Amino acid sequence: MLTSSRNPLLKDIRRAAGRGILTEDGYAVAEGLHLFEEAISSRAEIGAVLISEEAAERDWPTHVYALPNALFREIATTETTQGVIALVRPRVFTLADVFTGTTVLLDGIQDPGNAGAIVRATEAFGGAGVVFLKTTVSPFNPKCLRASAGSLFRLPFVNHPDPLDVKRAIVSREVALYSAMPHATDSIDQVDWSKPSAIVIGSEGRGVSTEWSAQATHVRIPTTGVESLNAAVAAAVILYEARRQR
Amino acid sequence: MLTSSRNPLLKDIRRAAGRGILTEDGYAVAEGLHLFEEAISSRAEIGAVLISEEAAERDWPTHVYALPNALFREIATTETTQGVIALVRPRVFTLADVFTGTTVLLDGIQDPGNAGAIVRATEAFGGAGVVFLKTTVSPFNPKCLRASAGSLFRLPFVNHPDPLDVKRAIVSREVALYSAMPHATDSIDQVDWSKPSAIVIGSEGRGVSTEWSAQATHVRIPTTGVESLNAAVAAAVILYEARRQR
Repeated sequence: MLTSSRNPLLKDIRRAAGRGILTEDGYAVAEGLHLFEEAISSRAEIGAVLISEEAAERDWPTHVYALPNALFREIATTETTQGVIALVRPRVFTLADVFTGTTVLLDGIQDPGNAGAIVRATEAFGGAGVVFLKTTVSPFNPKCLRASAGSLFRLPFVNHPDPLDVKRAIVSREVALYSAMPHATDSIDQVDWSKPSAIVIGSEGRGVSTEWSAQATHVRIPTTGVESLNAAVAAAVILYEARRQR
Repeated sequence: MLTSSRNPLLKDIRRAAGRGILTEDGYAVAEGLHLFEEAISSRAEIGAVLISEEAAERDWPTHVYALPNALFREIATTETTQGVIALVRPRVFTLADVFTGTTVLLDGIQDPGNAGAIVRATEAFGGAGVVFLKTTVSPFNPKCLRASAGSLFRLPFVNHPDPLDVKRAIVSREVALYSAMPHATDSIDQVDWSKPSAIVIGSEGRGVSTEWSAQATHVRIPTTGVESLNAAVAAAVILYEARRQR
């Protein structure tokens, strides 16, 4: 049992979870039994598993470190871990992997729950992948990982790429770029989503940045009464419409 | 300027915000400049407005109480209030008001952000209203109110009604009851949403309760690869499909 909070592995995990980055060995910190099971079923590489004393009574695969409850709670960022934190090696994708159908570009999404829900919806509705632009929360933020419900172990995504590389990939692959804007003329059901396309989703506070809206064809989600939609809701509805057309 | 944290109004507001209930005078505690503006444009009755010292430099309507910054921060439940907390009288609706089209029944949704986003999506896609069943977070939870982005000031909703009354209203109004279940045979695009209908949205952890799923026709959101969807995403996609058909 690991009992010292100064243990180098625990320090590394605490730092990675707190900053929403990978551990020094390149693992994402995945909290909770559900994510652990998703990592297993997604055949992701699991570096180690921390479990609380309470959870030690279950059967576990190898590489399990049991921690006293108090120490475990110090490491966990949520209360819904069920005593399990796994180190999961994220798969590495390139921009060529994400631009193969309908792609989502996250532009300034700061809410990790929204970002994760969008990744989950992208997988659910057959999207090709997600680009986390530099202004967006990290996919390895524990809340984002949890909200993705395992989709980040499977769906192609690229984390904080050079924007120029993203623009080059869009041009060279002839990807039609759209951004959801409340006052656009064309509605999302007038777009031909069967062609390679990408949709820029902006943050709720600031919307799509000028950098990206200037390059994109503006499209409107048909709504009444509201100024805008929750970012995950907006992305999901567009992805559903794209799937409906396929 | 109010300077005592033991001021009865402030105590009442703190209690209401903390528990997600109305104040003793029946006001919802609405934090942030955006909700304040939504309350004004929705012509909701505003009982009072608390502002922080910093925000006191703006022009405000009457009933404004300025608070020292430290005291204001003690009352606020978030950091994004922009120095404004308004007391807003919620409109009172009956079950007859909410069952006039496509209605959403929230069954055990505990995440206030999801519940609020669903209310917002219901208004956006022309839904009739939302029923907060007793197992669901209160609409007056500050996070729910904020996530609704003002839709709770406009859209018909009923808070924690007697389930028997809800069932009676559904039967007497010949409302078709659906619940979104991952393994259902019929897809949401095979449902005729032009008729009076209601959709039960369960929590992500536990799904729709047996109490409600037993009475409902099960429908599936066409997805691949994922076990389930974020509750707000699921509700929004169904409401979008219903709107698309109208």
